[in-house]
Amino acid sequence: MPTTYKEIHLANRPEGTPTNEDFAFIEKEIPSLADGELLLKTLYLSVDPYMRGRMRDVKSYVEPFKLNEAIAGGVLAEVVDSKSEGFKQGDIVTGRLNWAEYNVANAQTVQKVDPASAPITTRLGILGMTGLTAYFGLLDIGKPQEGETVVVSGAAGAVGSVVGQIAKLKGARVVGIAGSQDKIDYLINELGFDAAVNYKDNNFKEDFKKAIPDGVDVYFDNVGGVVSDTVIFEINRNARIVVCGTISSYNNPEADTGPRIQWKFITTSSMMKGFTIGDYAQEFKTGAQDLAKWLQEGKLKYEETITEGFERTPEAFLDLFEGNNLGKQLVKVAKPEFASL
Amino acid sequence: MPTTYKEIHLANRPEGTPTNEDFAFIEKEIPSLADGELLLKTLYLSVDPYMRGRMRDVKSYVEPFKLNEAIAGGVLAEVVDSKSEGFKQGDIVTGRLNWAEYNVANAQTVQKVDPASAPITTRLGILGMTGLTAYFGLLDIGKPQEGETVVVSGAAGAVGSVVGQIAKLKGARVVGIAGSQDKIDYLINELGFDAAVNYKDNNFKEDFKKAIPDGVDVYFDNVGGVVSDTVIFEINRNARIVVCGTISSYNNPEADTGPRIQWKFITTSSMMKGFTIGDYAQEFKTGAQDLAKWLQEGKLKYEETITEGFERTPEAFLDLFEGNNLGKQLVKVAKPEFASL
Repeated sequence: MPTTYKEIHLANRPEGTPTNEDFAFIEKEIPSLADGELLLKTLYLSVDPYMRGRMRDVKSYVEPFKLNEAIAGGVLAEVVDSKSEGFKQGDIVTGRLNWAEYNVANAQTVQKVDPASAPITTRLGILGMTGLTAYFGLLDIGKPQEGETVVVSGAAGAVGSVVGQIAKLKGARVVGIAGSQDKIDYLINELGFDAAVNYKDNNFKEDFKKAIPDGVDVYFDNVGGVVSDTVIFEINRNARIVVCGTISSYNNPEADTGPRIQWKFITTSSMMKGFTIGDYAQEFKTGAQDLAKWLQEGKLKYEETITEGFERTPEAFLDLFEGNNLGKQLVKVAKPEFASL
Repeated sequence: MPTTYKEIHLANRPEGTPTNEDFAFIEKEIPSLADGELLLKTLYLSVDPYMRGRMRDVKSYVEPFKLNEAIAGGVLAEVVDSKSEGFKQGDIVTGRLNWAEYNVANAQTVQKVDPASAPITTRLGILGMTGLTAYFGLLDIGKPQEGETVVVSGAAGAVGSVVGQIAKLKGARVVGIAGSQDKIDYLINELGFDAAVNYKDNNFKEDFKKAIPDGVDVYFDNVGGVVSDTVIFEINRNARIVVCGTISSYNNPEADTGPRIQWKFITTSSMMKGFTIGDYAQEFKTGAQDLAKWLQEGKLKYEETITEGFERTPEAFLDLFEGNNLGKQLVKVAKPEFASL
């Protein structure tokens, strides 16, 4: 067993696009455990676009990360030492933990994962917060009806790819927006989207209009910016806009201007609602059961983009803003000591 | 009885702010009535901001006005001749009729007004589409709760002044935004608003923040533009934005840009919905009953700005965009021939 480990601190509040210099790798000693605590070895960690918001010193729905303290997010870990009766060496758990090679956590703050039921990484993706975000945002706010047109931006990303597939399960016509031909092909050929459009193409607006002959009834928005302007100007009567993310402006929110959209909501009697997954904490169980069932039945597919090596965590995070990931972006930190997966 | 009358046609589709030249007064002959028809003498007509939208050649929730045809809107008229059993000379009716000194209308397209129950002009204002717009927008979309802060822009206008008073009836703290000190005084001293702020003041943003110590839970938006940017940036968790109008940009919608607002909806899980009064056609009766009851009980007050003379109709319409009106802007066209009001 090592006696020290590394953990990633926020060294600076990034101005604009974060760089490697905004992250510091700090060496710490593994402490001894108090009663009820677990020593957890990180196997995978999740990097997510919303974490960019927490790097700014602005009051929001979650506290900002503190300068010179560890960045925290979704982590999948192995119990390597336990002072809690409910957990033993080799158990796999998930929770909000530090970006660190090891965490010491109170056993009540983590959830046990059954490695037999599904690949463990799904707990950071399609069966975790990512899948639940797609599930509740689409079904509770978007409420797609059979035959309606659902448009999703960031469609090949972790959330978008699940949104589109659930919309298909509900009988909607699904149009994805993504940023490369590979992603377009994936959406149509692998996930069964009815159409997909590349927003980086010069003809994006024309291509998009061709892809929505019946207009837009539901728009699940992961990106904001010009893409969303384009979609919103094509909404039908009683359209529902689900605002999940605005990744196009996370690195420069103050300068983000565009056409005002309110008049379009009047002329169509449409609705727009933002949300974060915490809004649905009381209903996680229902959502997770549906997602697990659909996954087991082969009705949901998923991709993972896995970056190997804890030291490449900042790189994996920054890749999100370049759109380099297909599906869920994870970092593989280590192999388990005791569990055989 | 005259044999001819004047009616106002849309002579040009206005570019930017309309001018007198966009309206033409056309002389027409009074036709003879067919069975089921009424000859109606216009007493008052309503000019409303939304009519600017109908002057553009753009598909919307209502058809655009046609070039060189009559402009139509809310009209209060006296029956001067009737070929319908249900109506007689001297009856007062209201309906969507032409901006004209006389209209010939099928009796089924107008509603009889009881002059004894309330001043007849209220049928074009607080007991008509204006009051219903305030009622359904605020109560169905805004859903103000006791103790919440409700902000209304265009607060001294026909819709805004009713919105604020209904919000007070529901126990909310009400903050109005308007464009003159007279209007501010009216809102606070006459209508009982808790605070009111002048958006034309240099200190508007600071004044507004002081007026909303507990943030904004409901925003009923009649104006759009910079005023709405300012309000939306102060919304609380689970805020509701009711988009009723964007008068600040009606004369130049294409050029209307500003900060994108989607991120604010994510961080607060807030909702924005547009509507037009037609959405609530099935529920008009309930709304009209509540409004009439509150008016009778002295719980609702209203103001009217009455411009005298049919020939001044374009002027009265254009005054709306200057904010010259307090409460409902009407044009008094003529006195009744037969009814004693």
